[in-house]
Order: sequence, then C-alpha cells, then structure tokens
Amino acid sequence: MDNAKPLPNYLVQRYHGWKATGYAENQSWYRRLASDGQHPRAMVISCCDSRVHVTSIFGADQGEFFIHRNIANLVPPYQPDGAQHGTSAAVEYAVRALKVAHLIVLGHSNCGGVQGCINMCQGKAPDLDAKDSFVGRWMDLLRPKYEVVADIADADEQQRQLEKHAVMTSLENLMTFPWIGEKVSAGELTLHGLWTDIGEGGLEYYNTEKELFMPV
Amino acid sequence: MDNAKPLPNYLVQRYHGWKATGYAENQSWYRRLASDGQHPRAMVISCCDSRVHVTSIFGADQGEFFIHRNIANLVPPYQPDGAQHGTSAAVEYAVRALKVAHLIVLGHSNCGGVQGCINMCQGKAPDLDAKDSFVGRWMDLLRPKYEVVADIADADEQQRQLEKHAVMTSLENLMTFPWIGEKVSAGELTLHGLWTDIGEGGLEYYNTEKELFMPV
Amino acid sequence: MDNAKPLPNYLVQRYHGWKATGYAENQSWYRRLASDGQHPRAMVISCCDSRVHVTSIFGADQGEFFIHRNIANLVPPYQPDGAQHGTSAAVEYAVRALKVAHLIVLGHSNCGGVQGCINMCQGKAPDLDAKDSFVGRWMDLLRPKYEVVADIADADEQQRQLEKHAVMTSLENLMTFPWIGEKVSAGELTLHGLWTDIGEGGLEYYNTEKELFMPV
Amino acid sequence: MDNAKPLPNYLVQRYHGWKATGYAENQSWYRRLASDGQHPRAMVISCCDSRVHVTSIFGADQGEFFIHRNIANLVPPYQPDGAQHGTSAAVEYAVRALKVAHLIVLGHSNCGGVQGCINMCQGKAPDLDAKDSFVGRWMDLLRPKYEVVADIADADEQQRQLEKHAVMTSLENLMTFPWIGEKVSAGELTLHGLWTDIGEGGLEYYNTEKELFMPV
Repeated sequence: MDNAKPLPNYLVQRYHGWKATGYAENQSWYRRLASDGQHPRAMVISCCDSRVHVTSIFGADQGEFFIHRNIANLVPPYQPDGAQHGTSAAVEYAVRALKVAHLIVLGHSNCGGVQGCINMCQGKAPDLDAKDSFVGRWMDLLRPKYEVVADIADADEQQRQLEKHAVMTSLENLMTFPWIGEKVSAGELTLHGLWTDIGEGGLEYYNTEKELFMPV
Repeated sequence: MDNAKPLPNYLVQRYHGWKATGYAENQSWYRRLASDGQHPRAMVISCCDSRVHVTSIFGADQGEFFIHRNIANLVPPYQPDGAQHGTSAAVEYAVRALKVAHLIVLGHSNCGGVQGCINMCQGKAPDLDAKDSFVGRWMDLLRPKYEVVADIADADEQQRQLEKHAVMTSLENLMTFPWIGEKVSAGELTLHGLWTDIGEGGLEYYNTEKELFMPV
Repeated sequence: MDNAKPLPNYLVQRYHGWKATGYAENQSWYRRLASDGQHPRAMVISCCDSRVHVTSIFGADQGEFFIHRNIANLVPPYQPDGAQHGTSAAVEYAVRALKVAHLIVLGHSNCGGVQGCINMCQGKAPDLDAKDSFVGRWMDLLRPKYEVVADIADADEQQRQLEKHAVMTSLENLMTFPWIGEKVSAGELTLHGLWTDIGEGGLEYYNTEKELFMPV
Repeated sequence: MDNAKPLPNYLVQRYHGWKATGYAENQSWYRRLASDGQHPRAMVISCCDSRVHVTSIFGADQGEFFIHRNIANLVPPYQPDGAQHGTSAAVEYAVRALKVAHLIVLGHSNCGGVQGCINMCQGKAPDLDAKDSFVGRWMDLLRPKYEVVADIADADEQQRQLEKHAVMTSLENLMTFPWIGEKVSAGELTLHGLWTDIGEGGLEYYNTEKELFMPV
C-alpha cells in the first residue's frame, strides 16, 4: 500500500485540540474503557449520511452505543451461507458478544439511498440497476416495499414513507436471526424503530400497535 | 413487525434536551443541510466499537464526515458479483455520488473483532470458525495477515499490530476498486490510514514511505 | 498599471512550501472545492487587524467560512441607494446566494479603529474628523455609541466596552436588512456576536437575555 | 438586539481546543502583539470566498498580514466625499497608520462575484441589475472591463481573464489615492497583483512589463 497520505493539517490541529481538552477531561473514563472493555447498553444501526449524528441526538458519550452505519440503515435477512455479511456480523457481535439490551434502527429524512431506490424502481436510474452497482444491489433489500408506496403522488411524502419502510424492513429482518428472536422472547433484548427529520430535528418511533410512526 | 417497543424514557428525555439546546442552536444549519443536501469532505470508515468517536476526535459537526462503521473497520476487496456488499455500497456512494475528497480508515486499540480473529487463528474460538458465525466470516478478511504477526510473543503488541494490519488491509482493498484507483491517480481522492489508542487518546497515521504507523 | 512588482522572494518561498505540503495534502479537497463550488456554513465578519485569525480559533479549513474583514467589523445599516456598499454586498452574497446558516460578527481587543473613534469623539483626532478621512467616516458608524461609554473612567475598559458595542451595532444593523430579518424569523439564519481578547486568547459571546458578553 | 444566539457547541469545543494548544504554544507572542500593537509587513486585499486562505498560502502567523476581504477583491477609486467607503478606510489605515510596506491584491479562480458580473453584462442577471442589489452595484466597479473580454468564446477563459482584470482594476484604483502614489514614488510602498487557482493551488503575479500574469 503506497497510496496513503498524512492527515491534512487542520485535522491534526483539531485532534491536538481535542486531546488537550475533551480527552484530558475524560482521561480516567477513557482509560477505564480501555482496561475494562466496552459495555454498551444499546446497538444503533443508522445511515452513513453525514447529517445523522446519533450521539448528538441522544447526548451519548464514549462507551454507550455500539454503532453500525450503512447505506439507508438496512439489515439483510438471516443468511448464514459462509459469505461476508458486514451488517449481520455487527449485529451478531452486539447481541451475542456484548449482550446489548436495546437494538435501535434509526432512519432519517432526505435519505439519498432511499431516493436512489425510488429512482431505480421508477426506471430512472439504469446505473443503479447495473450488476456492478453496489448501491443498487444493496437497495434491492428495500425494493419489495416500493410497491406499497408506488401510488403516493407527492414525491416527498413517497420518499418519507419508504424511508420508514426501510426501518420496518430492518426490524423485520432482524427478527429472522434466531438468536434475536430468542432474546426478544426472553425479555433480554428490545427492538426499536426510529426516524429523524434532519431539518426540523424531529424524532418519531414506530408504534407497533398502530402500525405507524409517532413523535417521541 | 409487532416487536418494536417505544424508546426508553431516559433516551426520550435526552432527545428533548438536545432538541432544546443542540438543535435549537443549529437549527438554521440543519435546515440548510436538509434543503441543500450533504457535501461531506471526507468518508470515515471506523469500527462499531462504542469507544470510538470520530466526530469528537476531529471536532466535526453534522455534515462534515460521511461515516461507515463496521466490525474492525474492514473493507472487502472489489467483488461486483451482484450480491449485497454493504461496505462497498457505502464506499461507492461516498466516492461516486458524493465525491468526497478524503477516505479515512480509522482503526483502534482494544478491538474485539481483531482479538476474535487472533483467537480464531490460534484455534481458540471454534464458534467463530463455524460457517454460521457472521463475525468469524467477516474477520476472514483479515485472516491472511495473522501470519505476519504470528511470531510476536507479547499478546498486546500482537493485537496492536494486527489492528494496524486491518487498516492497511482496508487501504489495499480500497485500491482494488477501479473507480478509486482512478480518482487517486487523478488527485481527486486521497486515502488515509489512522489508528487511535482509546485509553491514551493517541492517534497514529500510516506512513507509506516508512511502512509504519507514526504519531500525528 | 505600471507599478506592480513581483512578490518578495520570502513570500515566493513560503508559497512553494505550502504548495509542496499544505496543498499537496489537500489537493483532492481543493479540486473538489473548485469543481463543486463553495458551501460555507457560516459568514464571519471580523476586523482587518493582523492579530485576528478566525480560522485558527475555530480550526477551520478552506471552504468552511465565508469571511468579510473590514475596519472594526462594522456593518452599516441597510441603504439600497445604488451606491457601492462593499460590506452590504458581502452580506448579500453570503445570505442570499450562498445561504449561510450562521452570521458571526467577531470583535476584538486592542482595536485600532475603535481607539480612533474614541479619540475622534474626544476631540483628539482632527485628522479623523476631516471629510477626506475614510477611516474617520467609516467609524462614524460607531460614533453614536460613544455616549454610552463616555463616562467610563478607565481608558482600557472604555475601549473594551466600545469594541463590544461595535459588535452589537453590527448585529443591530444586520437586522435592518429585510432579507436577514425574514431568514432569522424563519429559522434559516442565526446571528452571533463574539469578542476575542488577543493577548489572553479569550472568547466571549453576546448574551441577548443578560445584554452582556460572557465567556463561551 | 435580541436576536443573537450562543455559538454552536462544536465551535465552542474547537475554540477550547485551540486555546489549549495553538494559543498556549504562542501565548508569549500573542501577549506581545497585544501590548506592543500590530506591525504587519503587508496588507492583503482578497475575496471573501471561503476557498481563499491567504494565511495558509503564505504560511503567515498572527501579526503578519493586515487583511481586507470583500467581494471579488475590488478597490474603488479615490472618492473622498464624506460617505462610508469600507475598502478605502481599510487601505487608509494600513498605508497611513500602520505604514505597511507591501499592498497585495489577491484574485482567484471560480470567483462568484466575477461570474455574476459577466452574467449581468450579458443581460442574464436582471436581479443583479436592480438598484437594490448590493452585489450588482459593487460589481459595477468591474463592469467597464467586460468589454475587454467580451469576445472570448470560451466561458472559463473569459471568466479567468476578467478575474485578472479585477486585480488590475484594483491596482489602478489604488494609484488614484494621492498618499499611495506618493509612497510608491518614494519607495516606501510596493503594490503587487496576484491570482490563485483554487483547484490546482497555482499562483500567478502581474508582470507589469509584459502586461500579463505569470507563475511565481
């Protein structure tokens, strides 16, 4: 590997600033986290989107949330075929090794992955349909749900609904993992579905009984 | 899906606290991010580990970093086989759709995934060797590098070295993506390898010429 | 124009140093900024004073802050009379074309412009009172506030207070621009008043409720 | 003024980081700058554009450059009419009060102000032509030079040439200030015209004899 470069100077400066303040103030806690291991209370599955900051929203400090971030916060169904499944690996580690108590799927507004899925389903994104499009193939996980929102005339509302279906799809797929179903039944693990509005700072949770998202 | 539960109250309270402070202070910026879209300067690939906070270390706000987090910050090699590759999808979206300028792989000390890989390679973790272990199969990506560190007697040092090899492996695999190599050659994308010490707050970068990690 | 000279050699050398380091490290980002345009999150209005470095204080990189610098960080009131108003033009471009989310006025200690205003108000600076003094006429913007500090006996304290009034005056005048008031009301733009102590590195913000500057 | 808000938290954190590192390392110099006053060697007039960082390009520290930034780095002609001229005030303070030795006008590529001027001259920007457009009226300073570049077919080249004319216009207008002409004649002040390419990090200076810009 001869292509890696040193970090840009402004990031080095910011790091040294954090080291002298944020780190210094929390040193004892960071050392404890290093020696004692992590004991996160929850796993959060959110999107890679730069506008989603789960630690900010929940005032979380180092050590609280085990966080997996991928495109559109999607979890594939249980598929123990010996191939590499990064999301399933993260879920397995959180649930079986770390024994988190909560598993939170956090969707969000203005999701580029979901928008791409809609474009693809409407025949407007041939590049995403190509076999070699990793984004397209990843969004195939959500594709079956497009039918449910296909008739919504308002494009913004259609996307918002599909973003929420992405959360529900992940929750459904999580339940196909046998060791998740067992722990949920045993009261050792709770699943939560959330959707946040980036511009307005809103937060909704999936209400199972009413089968819709409601403000927290 | 009838298993999702409302959010625990303490998280609801924290969210409302953020809404009244962090969100209120930045409302105009969040609205701009929602209406104008994200323009992150960098993608960061880090571990799900709850002790790694890339935004803290670099004083980053919403909108700066597109963040993918998986077990042991591993990137698989380019494999456009039509199957689901969540990490490759995230990289594709960042590089091709968002056109990020920097691609940062951030490894860390005390990495449970790397430790599992060592255990597996030393025959101490039969469960990870099982075909249905998602973590084990994911860590297969790093397995070939175990040979390089197999002779290191000190267990801590051995793990630290393999953690750094995880970063190097990801950098190498990133270069197998044709559109990454092209952009790196064209000076439109820069790769960076970092490793952080959780307990001490240290930060090292991969120095290509010396082929080792050095403090920033 | 036959009076321009080549750059002094030491500046040429420093430039080449930056080209080989700072530029080289960030080439991909600079190219992206050139091709993709700027998307700054904030406009900063600060003084021309060589001792004020807003990018250092906030660890900001190229692309983050749209910066206007003039004498004493003053903004004149809205005056759409068809004449040239450089500060108003900068504010218009930032708010209407770039749609920045934050508008920060940054005052500072030891401000020569503010000191000149005091001298002028105390009848000690006839040259600044002359019609052809651009500095004097510019500082007329702050002149009405001298009355508020006229009775402060300690000269240093008097100047410090007038420096802070310069920030408040700019904030007040900014609100006279109709498209600023609208955006502030709509939650699309936030105003901030800051004052920095050059020698001590202090930073204070204007607290609206208490009507005074407080340490951040 | 009841509209100013506290600074967003990430900027507060970054500031504290700078205070603990950048400030701490330079405290004695900052204190000296505060007690001894500024003695900048040069005044730089550059654009507000967030992508232009004159201190980075020239490795300049606090105290070296007195910096005025406005839209398109334009200096209006000498006009001592008693009205507010912010740019002229900054120039007056630098030349007459601080007695800088160099006066550098720094233009740049991808300049939104210059592009707006071209659009306006081509009848494509009626909003900029309106009397109440501060940007439009400010760019009137450059308008007469559009004729010189009007016949350039390539739009990028046309803009680049007008960006350089913005620098030359400012140099010409600076010479209309009587106390600048005197100091230049007396060898006490030198003018310099520069233009930087944001994407490529290039730097050109205005060569008076050849009447064109050349790489430094």
